[in-house]
Amino acid sequence: MQHLLGLEDLTGEQITHLLDRAEQYVGVGREAPRRADLAGKVVANLFYEPSTRTKISFSLAARRLGADTLDFSPSGSSTAKGESFIDTARNIEAMGIDAVVVRHASAGAPHLLTKHLLPHVRVINAGDGAHEHPTQGLLDIFTIRRVKKSIAGLTVALVGDIAHSRVARSNIHGLVKLGAKVIVCGPTTLIPQQVESLGVELAHDLDKVLPRCDVVNLLRVQFERQRTGFFPSLREYARLFGMNGERMALAKPGMLILAPGPINRGVELTPDVADGPNSLILDQVSNGLAVRMAVLSEVCGGGK
Amino acid sequence: MQHLLGLEDLTGEQITHLLDRAEQYVGVGREAPRRADLAGKVVANLFYEPSTRTKISFSLAARRLGADTLDFSPSGSSTAKGESFIDTARNIEAMGIDAVVVRHASAGAPHLLTKHLLPHVRVINAGDGAHEHPTQGLLDIFTIRRVKKSIAGLTVALVGDIAHSRVARSNIHGLVKLGAKVIVCGPTTLIPQQVESLGVELAHDLDKVLPRCDVVNLLRVQFERQRTGFFPSLREYARLFGMNGERMALAKPGMLILAPGPINRGVELTPDVADGPNSLILDQVSNGLAVRMAVLSEVCGGGK
Amino acid sequence: MQHLLGLEDLTGEQITHLLDRAEQYVGVGREAPRRADLAGKVVANLFYEPSTRTKISFSLAARRLGADTLDFSPSGSSTAKGESFIDTARNIEAMGIDAVVVRHASAGAPHLLTKHLLPHVRVINAGDGAHEHPTQGLLDIFTIRRVKKSIAGLTVALVGDIAHSRVARSNIHGLVKLGAKVIVCGPTTLIPQQVESLGVELAHDLDKVLPRCDVVNLLRVQFERQRTGFFPSLREYARLFGMNGERMALAKPGMLILAPGPINRGVELTPDVADGPNSLILDQVSNGLAVRMAVLSEVCGGGK
Repeated sequence: MQHLLGLEDLTGEQITHLLDRAEQYVGVGREAPRRADLAGKVVANLFYEPSTRTKISFSLAARRLGADTLDFSPSGSSTAKGESFIDTARNIEAMGIDAVVVRHASAGAPHLLTKHLLPHVRVINAGDGAHEHPTQGLLDIFTIRRVKKSIAGLTVALVGDIAHSRVARSNIHGLVKLGAKVIVCGPTTLIPQQVESLGVELAHDLDKVLPRCDVVNLLRVQFERQRTGFFPSLREYARLFGMNGERMALAKPGMLILAPGPINRGVELTPDVADGPNSLILDQVSNGLAVRMAVLSEVCGGGK
Repeated sequence: MQHLLGLEDLTGEQITHLLDRAEQYVGVGREAPRRADLAGKVVANLFYEPSTRTKISFSLAARRLGADTLDFSPSGSSTAKGESFIDTARNIEAMGIDAVVVRHASAGAPHLLTKHLLPHVRVINAGDGAHEHPTQGLLDIFTIRRVKKSIAGLTVALVGDIAHSRVARSNIHGLVKLGAKVIVCGPTTLIPQQVESLGVELAHDLDKVLPRCDVVNLLRVQFERQRTGFFPSLREYARLFGMNGERMALAKPGMLILAPGPINRGVELTPDVADGPNSLILDQVSNGLAVRMAVLSEVCGGGK
Repeated sequence: MQHLLGLEDLTGEQITHLLDRAEQYVGVGREAPRRADLAGKVVANLFYEPSTRTKISFSLAARRLGADTLDFSPSGSSTAKGESFIDTARNIEAMGIDAVVVRHASAGAPHLLTKHLLPHVRVINAGDGAHEHPTQGLLDIFTIRRVKKSIAGLTVALVGDIAHSRVARSNIHGLVKLGAKVIVCGPTTLIPQQVESLGVELAHDLDKVLPRCDVVNLLRVQFERQRTGFFPSLREYARLFGMNGERMALAKPGMLILAPGPINRGVELTPDVADGPNSLILDQVSNGLAVRMAVLSEVCGGGK
């Protein structure tokens, strides 16, 4: 695998290979010693949107593999688009950097990079517009698989703002390829047209679908959507789509709760659910490291 | 020692143990080779207040012990309080980070962290509100001890804004436990009520106490205090509490001058004093590294 | 060589020595393994003006030599001038840092540092006001020499804003010392008085001098100059001083195009020239690493 641009581009076998590979990295750093898989390599973060967690997760993953990391992220609102984005990338290439982890507000930006860089510079998409966030998709699926053993046959609901969510899109592609049934559930204003063409089931009433779900993944509410009228109020959102103790009572026993952080307590889910026994939110963070180590190692380090 | 939250929590023996331990780290980096005490460990900086010096001092200390460092500090004014502070900490924990160096505007924030993190994640207070800044207190005391050989029996004046100073509070606790006589001296508006209950002597006239002092520690004037009417003018402050050549003439020979940086030349002290033979200001910076290495090593690395 | 403050201070022999030394670092990182020349040393970036590329280039260079790097740059608009600049430097010294890479808006700031630091702290100028940017000058000259084999006898035009350009000044000093003929060409408002005293030829009509040039170095247009009336419009600038396909037809075959990034496509040069066969713009970036490794190694590591 040369780059990781999106789960849409991968086969189920490739996804499974990455998940299997991530298993060997679980616990590296704390329990197990550092690795030298990527010793001497340099991984650059190129984040055009603010991020703390994802950037640090990639940095930690790279360093645990023995790579060096650099932050090439443009400061503040310094725009970087069109040619200047490509010129920045070419500078990174000219500096002999081995891999670029890129986040950009424009869908397709990581793909554009691969067109302009020499093939030995590897590109990993850390989120491009509303398109994909493949390592988040992989870590969500990895977290489910570690508990449920297999993805095939599971029913997974993605709840919330599907239309603007790159996390939703990567989850859908990955889960469908591995044989899960995916339900997308949210306000009509936040479900994209023709989402069913992606092989998912559409729902607007969470309570109706909840009893069938093995996993619920609660997408983050982005507050700027509220201002633009996509949903009436946070209170209303929480009432209809937030997970709480009452709603948990409708669920199958052992239904897993996922949420890509940072969570808004009291909005997507109440604290009792976030901190409850079904919540895998912090496992997602830990597993994110293992998954990103697997991706970096696969993409930069060649075969196993 | 599991965490370092404040010198108030330590016994004199524990403080002495840390100071003794710091002795072995003096000069590591320049004269002596790196250590591997914390090889494979990751130390995260979590600074909710701006800082360059303290953050870099901790980073250098960690790296000289072989640890890796990461900056988790929220950017700019992005607020982080209440639950979100704890959720951030839990993310750090989930990423397998070994120690958190935390600075926060709220007194007690580091203590709160220790309540919510697994015990293997160590917490070091790098300044919490007006409460404590224990490594600054330790490095001040360490700097004095290196010259005077012992703290017991010394008379140390803390001069300036005692009420809002975490540095003062950590110095008071540490110095009193080691047997020093502490005088706090400042404008009445900047001395906390009942400060004498901490075992210190109260003074408002610096010239009167100066002849008894072995050490004077000139606390930094924080300019925002002036705007809020705590003292009339910088000129007035300098006249009453600033150290200058004239005032040095009142002092015992060999009286030591300390000041936690960054100093305001012409306010807390004049350049001739700052750069004079009694000034230990730059020794404080160097010793800060040794003290922070001792603290990190003690807290993260277990026994000696 | 103890510090690198400017090419004006060096002899032709010293410049040639640095260029020769840089040859051995070409490709280190990608093709060749890391070096341990500066193992255990700490290099601090102290940038008072924003920079991504130069800062990262120095950081990468330092790390490829085995050094550790730290960013001491003051955040945002936090002013740092006069005594406080020196106090910051003394703090860096007290922390046991081995070298400071400094960029400052005031000409002479790096020189000022060397007056106040102990001689074992090495200072490298990464750009001081409109004075010098010696590593940029060296990397430009190194890039030319790698293609043309020798600098002596070449004719090199520096085009654009000579008056405000530290890059121009370092190029002039270095090229003249190595025996090149230098032509400076730009609007009369952007050529300093008495520039000919530096041993260069003055021109205002690019088309007239172009047929004699072996190299053209297109200085970056700084947009703030336009607002202050130094030139009428970007369109006018591009018409008179921009390099484009038509103008390339006037040039000697094999005339080299250099431009210190980041380039403004369509202003200093058109995309067909920037990406054309004569352009060495990306070689400059790669060579910048080798040159900075040579400088760091020379300055911090002593003899070869």
